[in-house]
Formats: sequence, structure tokens, C-alpha cells
Amino acid sequence: VPRSYEIPVCPIARTLDLIGERWTLLLLRDFHRKGPLRFQDLQEAFPAAAPNTLSQRLKDLEAHDLIEREVYSEHPPRLRYRLTRRGASLKPVLAALREWGEQNT
Amino acid sequence: VPRSYEIPVCPIARTLDLIGERWTLLLLRDFHRKGPLRFQDLQEAFPAAAPNTLSQRLKDLEAHDLIEREVYSEHPPRLRYRLTRRGASLKPVLAALREWGEQNT
Repeated sequence: VPRSYEIPVCPIARTLDLIGERWTLLLLRDFHRKGPLRFQDLQEAFPAAAPNTLSQRLKDLEAHDLIEREVYSEHPPRLRYRLTRRGASLKPVLAALREWGEQNT
Repeated sequence: VPRSYEIPVCPIARTLDLIGERWTLLLLRDFHRKGPLRFQDLQEAFPAAAPNTLSQRLKDLEAHDLIEREVYSEHPPRLRYRLTRRGASLKPVLAALREWGEQNT
């Protein structure tokens, strides 16, 4: 996915600028499927991904308002991540990938 | 996208194993939009992609039966690439990415 200071004219390219990095669509799939998740849950779900990489992907998803942090325990303080409404709106993209995979792989 | 000797159970992951690499979806978009293309056309369309990378992506797409080579001139011999029927069946995936991008970016 090209990164430039210009915003791509093509809406497909603009979408891939947000969700085209390795792991990102699989992370979004897990939030869609499982609901809110802790960092630890994601580490267990993606043992092949480096923790730094997972952490960066979560930061990027948060910066693009696709997921948000939620404090689910005050004492001790504990965080988890969940889809925003904008993140939830990616469901048709995941559905199209799933349907193609079911029929063609 | 995880690469392993096991085939992923999840159809989304299986799909991303085929089309999740950087540039691949944008290449497929161009074949959908423009029809058969020469390597030179793709180099011009993606100046930020290294020729080796483009070449590898085309090889991968061909290996997965998503595009195929076509001889369009015998003297001198000239090749171009075009979508297979299987590659054309990815249209709903591109449509979902486009629609989301139009509405959300």
C-alpha cells in the first residue's frame, strides 16, 4: 500500500491505507467475532505476530477511529479494546473476504 | 498475514494468504478497471513499487490462478496479463473496499 503525503484519489487505495497492513484485517475479524479483547487475548490469538507489531497495529487502528480503548477494571486498572461504530462498519469488507474464501479456497 | 504449512481454518485468513500482500489488491483493481495490462503499464501505474516486487506479485497472482499471461503479439513476442475467471470473481471484495472508502474516508 503506497504511503504518501497525498491522499489517494481511489477509495480502494484510501481504504487499504487504513486496513491494508499485515495483521490488521485479522485483528478486525477477531473484534467482530469475539467482541472486546485485551492485548493478552490478541497475543494468544496471533502467536506469530511480534508484540511490537501487534501494539503498533492497535495504535494505528485507534488513530483511525476503528477501535477504542475501554477501562474494564479500575482496581487494578485494566484495558481492553473494542470496535468503534466506524470499525463495525467494515463488516461488509470482512464478509466479502469470507465469502470469497469459502467459495474459492 | 501468517504464512505456515498449515492451511488456515478461517476463510478470511485463507483469502488474505492469496491477496493480502502489499500492492496485490491494487494490482487486481487495475486489472478489473482497465483489462489486460503489460508489465510496463503496471510499472507506470505503480511508480512507488520496486520492479522486483511487482514482478513477484504478478508471479504469485499467476500461481494462484488469479491472473494469466497472454501473448498479444507474435513478432516481436509481447506478453500481457489479464484476470482469470477466478480473479474476476474477486470483484465483490474490491466493491466492498470501494464502498467503505467512499463512505468513510
